[in-house]
Amino acid sequence: MRSLKNRPIGIFDSGVGGLTVARSVRKYLPGENIVYFGDTARVPYGNKSRETILRFSREIMAFLTEKGVKMVIVACNTASSLALSAIKKEYTVPVIGVIEPGVKESLKISTNKRVGVIGTRSTVASGAYKKKLLAEEPSCRVFSRDCPMFVPLVENRFFNDPATLRIAELYLSGIRKRKVDSLILGCTHYPLLKTVIGKVMKGVKLVDSSVAVAKYVKKALEAEDMASSRKRGKTAYFVSDDPGSFCRVARIFLKQKVSARKIIL
Amino acid sequence: MRSLKNRPIGIFDSGVGGLTVARSVRKYLPGENIVYFGDTARVPYGNKSRETILRFSREIMAFLTEKGVKMVIVACNTASSLALSAIKKEYTVPVIGVIEPGVKESLKISTNKRVGVIGTRSTVASGAYKKKLLAEEPSCRVFSRDCPMFVPLVENRFFNDPATLRIAELYLSGIRKRKVDSLILGCTHYPLLKTVIGKVMKGVKLVDSSVAVAKYVKKALEAEDMASSRKRGKTAYFVSDDPGSFCRVARIFLKQKVSARKIIL
Repeated sequence: MRSLKNRPIGIFDSGVGGLTVARSVRKYLPGENIVYFGDTARVPYGNKSRETILRFSREIMAFLTEKGVKMVIVACNTASSLALSAIKKEYTVPVIGVIEPGVKESLKISTNKRVGVIGTRSTVASGAYKKKLLAEEPSCRVFSRDCPMFVPLVENRFFNDPATLRIAELYLSGIRKRKVDSLILGCTHYPLLKTVIGKVMKGVKLVDSSVAVAKYVKKALEAEDMASSRKRGKTAYFVSDDPGSFCRVARIFLKQKVSARKIIL
Repeated sequence: MRSLKNRPIGIFDSGVGGLTVARSVRKYLPGENIVYFGDTARVPYGNKSRETILRFSREIMAFLTEKGVKMVIVACNTASSLALSAIKKEYTVPVIGVIEPGVKESLKISTNKRVGVIGTRSTVASGAYKKKLLAEEPSCRVFSRDCPMFVPLVENRFFNDPATLRIAELYLSGIRKRKVDSLILGCTHYPLLKTVIGKVMKGVKLVDSSVAVAKYVKKALEAEDMASSRKRGKTAYFVSDDPGSFCRVARIFLKQKVSARKIIL
């Protein structure tokens, strides 16, 4: 099984957002090689239909399995919510989404079992987080809200702007009133708005799923004896549009320069 | 030539934005049938590369020409800026973009020949408006600015919100200082922010290209004796993602209900 151990982990996302997951995986599993795919020609996924997201996800799965990955992380919350259950059945390679790790983490840190969930329109409309939370902890109360302006605010670097604070107030005041004590950041872009979200949701613990996913993946690989014994792994980046724009935004997420190759699916 | 007269006009856009053009064409050319295509599975185009926009535009041109259109309006400013010159050469059907009509209109109404241009990142980076303005009026001064937050603000109905005013101030204050007397709204979404843009650019004439395009198309069809003699034409809407979300946003643009069919290109 040595060869399987040394195969890369596949991570995909609609664009740059999944880099928060890639960064956490790199931190918790420094020896792993990673193949990252960002679907930048068709980004964003957050307001598109299940059927379309499923079609895109299948095309990306075909690309990643061809790269010989030993596991796939669906780093995009929207694709995890809408396509994960279908593609899990269609592939033999293990596929891990971001929903379950985020759910488990939020229930672990919540004391009053009142959990908030924010995400894209499609993620929230799917009810995926709510269903999983209730399956894990039937007594918990879940309060969800879609925040469709957050992704463009992040991608245009409005991290701490008064406009962002104003929009965050509009989106989050309803959940705040429900006295949640933990809030799942159900979109990979949202951790970059932690400061503003923290101001509006004072005293509420914010769950960054990217960290939860990385810990979850580490456990899963070790349990199956599939973790790499390498000291330092590498990451290869692939995108569906011109790499230039991806690499510029990737610097915000990774705090380092990257290069990427274009692949049309 | 009777059959050519009665053929539909094709209009395409990355999504719903081009509906401002479709509405103006309907107003100025009530007898025309229209085939509208919105590429909602891959929207937005505004921050994607020329190569990708050209690939998408070719796929849409193939669809529209198959529908037997007598003319195509590229209602998307980004596609007009990046793909128009290439696809004009590749098809026999006349293809009209939104740049030239907007440019002519702005020069007609400007007295000091200091013209502002706002648009998506790709539109502004292409320099298409600036080049066309200088070609038409070499003595004019052009001041451009990309406003990447405007599209998501429109699509999420932040028309008159303080956050929108704040972002408009950030984007437009530089152009205002340059004392332009006309401002080209170089993206089909921007007319829906006229109130806020007007507040920031007090006294400056705003050029809504959708109206300019419709007048331009009317003239072109009549000059070639290609205008329909019908009393009332119909519009057929096609989209690449689930029609539900398109139809919801289309109501904002058209102030009426529409239905659409999904086509995967």
